[in-house]
Amino acid sequence: MHCLGLKYFNKNQVESILEKAVYFKSTKNYTKSLQDAIVVNMFFENSTRTKTSFEIAALKLGARVVNFDYTKSSLQKGENWIDTITNLNAMHPDFFVTRHAYSGFAYYISQFTQANVINAGDGTNEHPSQALLDLMTMYEHKKDIENLKVCIIGDIINSRVARSHMYLAKMFNWDLSFYGPSTFLPQNIDIKIEKDLKQAISNKDFVILLRIQLERKSGVNIPSLDEYNKFFGIKEPIGAYIMHPGPVNRDVELDSTVYIDRNVLITKQVENGVFVRMAIFDFCMSN
Amino acid sequence: MHCLGLKYFNKNQVESILEKAVYFKSTKNYTKSLQDAIVVNMFFENSTRTKTSFEIAALKLGARVVNFDYTKSSLQKGENWIDTITNLNAMHPDFFVTRHAYSGFAYYISQFTQANVINAGDGTNEHPSQALLDLMTMYEHKKDIENLKVCIIGDIINSRVARSHMYLAKMFNWDLSFYGPSTFLPQNIDIKIEKDLKQAISNKDFVILLRIQLERKSGVNIPSLDEYNKFFGIKEPIGAYIMHPGPVNRDVELDSTVYIDRNVLITKQVENGVFVRMAIFDFCMSN
Amino acid sequence: MHCLGLKYFNKNQVESILEKAVYFKSTKNYTKSLQDAIVVNMFFENSTRTKTSFEIAALKLGARVVNFDYTKSSLQKGENWIDTITNLNAMHPDFFVTRHAYSGFAYYISQFTQANVINAGDGTNEHPSQALLDLMTMYEHKKDIENLKVCIIGDIINSRVARSHMYLAKMFNWDLSFYGPSTFLPQNIDIKIEKDLKQAISNKDFVILLRIQLERKSGVNIPSLDEYNKFFGIKEPIGAYIMHPGPVNRDVELDSTVYIDRNVLITKQVENGVFVRMAIFDFCMSN
Repeated sequence: MHCLGLKYFNKNQVESILEKAVYFKSTKNYTKSLQDAIVVNMFFENSTRTKTSFEIAALKLGARVVNFDYTKSSLQKGENWIDTITNLNAMHPDFFVTRHAYSGFAYYISQFTQANVINAGDGTNEHPSQALLDLMTMYEHKKDIENLKVCIIGDIINSRVARSHMYLAKMFNWDLSFYGPSTFLPQNIDIKIEKDLKQAISNKDFVILLRIQLERKSGVNIPSLDEYNKFFGIKEPIGAYIMHPGPVNRDVELDSTVYIDRNVLITKQVENGVFVRMAIFDFCMSN
Repeated sequence: MHCLGLKYFNKNQVESILEKAVYFKSTKNYTKSLQDAIVVNMFFENSTRTKTSFEIAALKLGARVVNFDYTKSSLQKGENWIDTITNLNAMHPDFFVTRHAYSGFAYYISQFTQANVINAGDGTNEHPSQALLDLMTMYEHKKDIENLKVCIIGDIINSRVARSHMYLAKMFNWDLSFYGPSTFLPQNIDIKIEKDLKQAISNKDFVILLRIQLERKSGVNIPSLDEYNKFFGIKEPIGAYIMHPGPVNRDVELDSTVYIDRNVLITKQVENGVFVRMAIFDFCMSN
Repeated sequence: MHCLGLKYFNKNQVESILEKAVYFKSTKNYTKSLQDAIVVNMFFENSTRTKTSFEIAALKLGARVVNFDYTKSSLQKGENWIDTITNLNAMHPDFFVTRHAYSGFAYYISQFTQANVINAGDGTNEHPSQALLDLMTMYEHKKDIENLKVCIIGDIINSRVARSHMYLAKMFNWDLSFYGPSTFLPQNIDIKIEKDLKQAISNKDFVILLRIQLERKSGVNIPSLDEYNKFFGIKEPIGAYIMHPGPVNRDVELDSTVYIDRNVLITKQVENGVFVRMAIFDFCMSN
């Protein structure tokens, strides 16, 4: 089974992955359910944590990982995408883990392969493993993932993380709201927009900060990073737990002095990432 | 034992590799004959399918693969080739899989190592695993690999694939011919040159199209890709099976509309590549 | 336990690693003491032999190796070092093997992780695995590693290898001396400086030649490579064994004609490198 986005999963499936991730974290004795499976990592955007997290997750389940280096591939010889994928597919890998700047890339790939495709982020569309590891982190801190009060702050309109969370919000009946500069906010959407930062962070279980993606020029939609920090950055500890998909622009979305607050769960998110990805591999393999 | 080229193999050895490849394809229960072996991949030319195919083949047999990244190696510090290989050899790997723009590179390396060297393409010399996977694909479609009628079309003179096939032609008594622009054809060679495309493709079991290697400037020997397509490209289905070592320049050697014809075996070639390479590893390891 | 430098090891620990390395070389039946461990290789300087040597050593002990590619990492997105390491640490790898141009880098990393950190070279500070493989090579040729007469020739002041050897010299009561152009020699140090090349190589058990690190511009401190070769290069076989951490600048530190002399142990050093690194992994894992 593919994991292309939370759009394609129902609540039972999400809970099943979450349960397995929690189990993987609690034990060291699990069956190596990917023993001898071949996982092909195809990352077309820079990434430390996500790629390494998927690689470690696959290795822990006994898989063998092949890192497809697009900078040395036949794509450089002008081969088109369909042919590259068709050829890799002909080698019968068990998984493709893909990250690409094009929205819909993972879905597109899935049309040309019998392997399970896991979307590790596609453009502004979805980043399901990130939303699921956020969910696991929420579960660990609130025990109940129904009816949460969650605000996402930042570049919503370009965020695949925010989009994946919208599906979770629906499944688990969250009170979800957005906040950020108006140039970062979606129009005509059925989600509450907070009026100011104070309101955005008050009476929330979790506040999720999004990265200003300087490398993708989202910076052009704000006057300056200092301005952003002034009006949208978290500069002191708040009542809600703070999460961030990383990498954090310190002193932009979150001040360094707050980073170490006990309510900031960023490192726990990264830790849970490995277990959630193990659970995703396991789930896709057995369904 | 090395696999430096088909020049060094006799008919029995080729048949033994072919038989093993067919066996690997037919079963999932094979002994992991490379268990714990160390395979060092040394690719000095861009490659998707060949490098990945060798890597997957090695992993499936239980080996561990080390990818030597020449762009980060001591070669960048001015170390010479003999010293680099002598040093890697001192680490006692079991295999070197090499691709390089220099003809004779694999043979050269083999003089400085006790490891088995597998030639994954050296300049315009040989590409034995490609010819063997072609042979396996021929075997699957004709059952008999003796006395085949085969025409190779394209940049013969720069083609290591064509050269490896010349050894197969001799072994299996093929009726082999070449066709292409005169600037792409070898002189003074004891192989029939076809008069025109119609003749080249008529009464053949297999037609092998070669890639115009734009990245190696073979394009300078033809007026234009359009011209090439007009006189040497396959623009409609033909009676013979069509093969191509890839990556295909679509609408140059082969029109996209023909690509999906059932007689076009390109994806099957790629699929068989993994099994042939498993068989080559297995053969070299046990001889 | 970390392996940050020989500064932090005592004689017993060094002997224990040496003993294990010799054992690994003598047998093929060893327990895979790193079975399922995750080793993250972080090399920020070009390296063939050291990186591959660590990778092969880890694989031979059953570990799984993740190569962290800094050129594609979030460091390129402006993430700071502490965050990158904190995040990688949260994925619970068992080892970081690090090489970096900053002296103290491995120690610094070790402050932010529960994983074992192995220093594969940090600036001009230490290169413990190199010194230990040198020691193993000395042991094989002299059987006794106490009271050796050793001269190190070359760019002492920038050499992490020389620095690691200074700790060995103290532990094993060596008669250690240095030689090289005055711009390459440390001031105010309690180690004998040889007067000329003849004296430097006479009555020695081992002469260790250091690389002129052209890639780090150490060349600016000498008039020319020819000059260096004339006054400091070894141009004919000598009585002492010759070692070099590699890669050798042939005909600079050592003439090609001497390279093949039986007293030149360079290839044996590389061979022993794998076994010493296996022993280091094993030692760190079990302490």
